[in-house]
Amino acid sequence: MKRVLIVHAHPEPRSFTSSMKGEATRVFEALGCEVRVSDLYAKQFNPVASAADFAGAEGRDYLVYAKEQRAAYAGGTLADDIKEEVESVLWADLVVLNFPIFWFSVPAIMKGWIDRVFLSGPFYGGLRFYDKGGLTGKRAWITTTLGGQPHMFGERAVHGQIELMLSHLIRGTLGYVGFTVLEPFFGYHVPYISEDDRIALLARFRNAVQQWERREVLEMPSLDNFDQRLYPLSSLQTS
Amino acid sequence: MKRVLIVHAHPEPRSFTSSMKGEATRVFEALGCEVRVSDLYAKQFNPVASAADFAGAEGRDYLVYAKEQRAAYAGGTLADDIKEEVESVLWADLVVLNFPIFWFSVPAIMKGWIDRVFLSGPFYGGLRFYDKGGLTGKRAWITTTLGGQPHMFGERAVHGQIELMLSHLIRGTLGYVGFTVLEPFFGYHVPYISEDDRIALLARFRNAVQQWERREVLEMPSLDNFDQRLYPLSSLQTS
Repeated sequence: MKRVLIVHAHPEPRSFTSSMKGEATRVFEALGCEVRVSDLYAKQFNPVASAADFAGAEGRDYLVYAKEQRAAYAGGTLADDIKEEVESVLWADLVVLNFPIFWFSVPAIMKGWIDRVFLSGPFYGGLRFYDKGGLTGKRAWITTTLGGQPHMFGERAVHGQIELMLSHLIRGTLGYVGFTVLEPFFGYHVPYISEDDRIALLARFRNAVQQWERREVLEMPSLDNFDQRLYPLSSLQTS
Repeated sequence: MKRVLIVHAHPEPRSFTSSMKGEATRVFEALGCEVRVSDLYAKQFNPVASAADFAGAEGRDYLVYAKEQRAAYAGGTLADDIKEEVESVLWADLVVLNFPIFWFSVPAIMKGWIDRVFLSGPFYGGLRFYDKGGLTGKRAWITTTLGGQPHMFGERAVHGQIELMLSHLIRGTLGYVGFTVLEPFFGYHVPYISEDDRIALLARFRNAVQQWERREVLEMPSLDNFDQRLYPLSSLQTS
């Protein structure tokens, strides 16, 4: 039985993005998956990384966030809200991020979920990233909505390739910690389309969820192509 | 007299990044600029976009954030903390973002500053973006620190080009609203370098601030190359 964590962030509970969250939950359950939903707005998740995230760190002279993460994870002194989310990510076989694109990225509440939950230590560290990251073996899937239309994205399009705009998230975050990253689901032009088009889009999403195990996987760097200091191996330099 | 807004976000007031903020303030003032600092951690800036950002919107049936932004800006019903930041951005000739890179992007508290302050209406809207954006004529400058080293970034490097990782911010945010975006200042490897190297890096930053008006400018798309529906004009399609 596959375990699915849906991390959802939208300020409007009646939004189309929220409908996607509900639909995904139902379909994954119908497929026999165990589903947990982390609804960041509903739980008023605190997105601000600070010394308060680590019991005992507030008296520290000088806060180095990643260092505190490693110590607090090892010592069990992480803030409860972080601990709960970390536990869910480690529990899951598939992590679904569900959000509207704000400024070609996630809303701040979800950025803070990443900043606080993606711990130095269990998630990554030293030479443990990309295909050697702490979360290898797990899959991640971006399911998102945006105002733009498909023709605004692509090599010669006004905004360039959307996967490049989102590379900080796809490669620099999800790929970095070791996830196998599935091809994102983009719901284009959502604020402007008709009710009929929304129904059709939701059906397309439902179908995508049903087929999630057959979804294409995005290419990530492999540390096998780099030396211990992370210089590229020469065979690549001349390619 | 040039007006400079420094937007700063770091959880540790004694950090190197915070020293950059102090140094930039002193140098800009010595250059005769008028300087405002918006220290997001110090002011406990709320990064979470919600209906509470607009007087009267909490009773709304259905929240469309960008639509509320336009109405609230026009009607003067924006939350006070947003109004203050918007006023500072509109006041400034140069906006300096000063932050440590968290997950190849800004910390959540600064992402929320963008989500809530970069208003649909005065900042962008319809066909008013990139070189037709609301903030054309102003400059923006990313000044940032990171753990990585220069050889980890570049075309064949393990993380690819850092400007691509940051394209959501450089192009999709600052360029989008019309800023002329200066070449970023990157303080590499900061958590790991010696005190001497930090002093040298701070001197290099001081010099960069002194010369800011001569800094290279990053290339942005021009809407002149696209039609009214944002399809590329044919001369480009065949290039």
